[in-house]
Amino acid sequence: MEGRRGLLIVYTGPGKGKTTAALGLLLRAWGRGWPMCVVQFIKHEGGQWGEVRAGQKLGIEWHQCGDGFTWRSRDLERTARLARDGWELARQKIGSGRYRLVLLDEFTYPLHFGWLDVDEVVAWLVQARPAHTHVVITGRDAPEALLSAADLVTRMELVRHPYQRGEKAVAGIDF
Amino acid sequence: MEGRRGLLIVYTGPGKGKTTAALGLLLRAWGRGWPMCVVQFIKHEGGQWGEVRAGQKLGIEWHQCGDGFTWRSRDLERTARLARDGWELARQKIGSGRYRLVLLDEFTYPLHFGWLDVDEVVAWLVQARPAHTHVVITGRDAPEALLSAADLVTRMELVRHPYQRGEKAVAGIDF
Repeated sequence: MEGRRGLLIVYTGPGKGKTTAALGLLLRAWGRGWPMCVVQFIKHEGGQWGEVRAGQKLGIEWHQCGDGFTWRSRDLERTARLARDGWELARQKIGSGRYRLVLLDEFTYPLHFGWLDVDEVVAWLVQARPAHTHVVITGRDAPEALLSAADLVTRMELVRHPYQRGEKAVAGIDF
Repeated sequence: MEGRRGLLIVYTGPGKGKTTAALGLLLRAWGRGWPMCVVQFIKHEGGQWGEVRAGQKLGIEWHQCGDGFTWRSRDLERTARLARDGWELARQKIGSGRYRLVLLDEFTYPLHFGWLDVDEVVAWLVQARPAHTHVVITGRDAPEALLSAADLVTRMELVRHPYQRGEKAVAGIDF
């Protein structure tokens, strides 16, 4: 809403639905015609995913800044550099004030793995973020400093998952 | 995927992000061109919501079967009847086999409040649902029989919410 403060929103925890919930926020906000931007910090293996296709079809600005499942990367220095570049981009996008909602998808990983300084990042988000811009951050293992600074934190708990029975990820549902 | 069994997916718990996560699934599946249908069992107060607008813009078939925050309804018999009609509609839609994904949004409430027979509903979903149709159910207080039958259950835990500080719901984020 005009005049309302943008929220810092975190979806974390081991359960399914973190990125998915963020996509739902995008969809809602798109329904309202908000200008939005997505920066994905972990690009999953294998190319064109449902959410990327959907984002393209919706005309949402969408950036992918990872090189796969980065904690398995052979060249960790490259992976860390990509994450820092991604944060630089995210900071430009948020700082521009042009967006009502910016999604930093799987941004907890570069924080958790120490590729970025958590306190610096959190301080920037709290102090330098334009007042009308909602920022949504997803991923497991959100650092405590981020959780403390957030306005809205939801933790997804895994209750049951078909992977536990040895089934595979399902296109359209899982990615 | 063709030849893959459709999943029964439940997003429950007191935290934020249940309907939102389901919307994210819709967006992903829409990106893949899946035929989809939404039946909303609780229509929130106040008319045109971000998700309904978005669904209309995306061309997703969308049905609203509630009359507001139903646990506050004055005419509970009418509310219960609307829920039963909604389930009848949902059963037709799922049973038609025309959809890859059907969202029963806030469908746990008619189950929790006893307006529908939980065991009958769960048995129908497990036995009569076409094999290729994913069904996604959202809402607090999902009954144990539904959780036991589901392939994928995520529980959203509330960690922090601005409502706790007396702030109001935010258009585009909360609805």
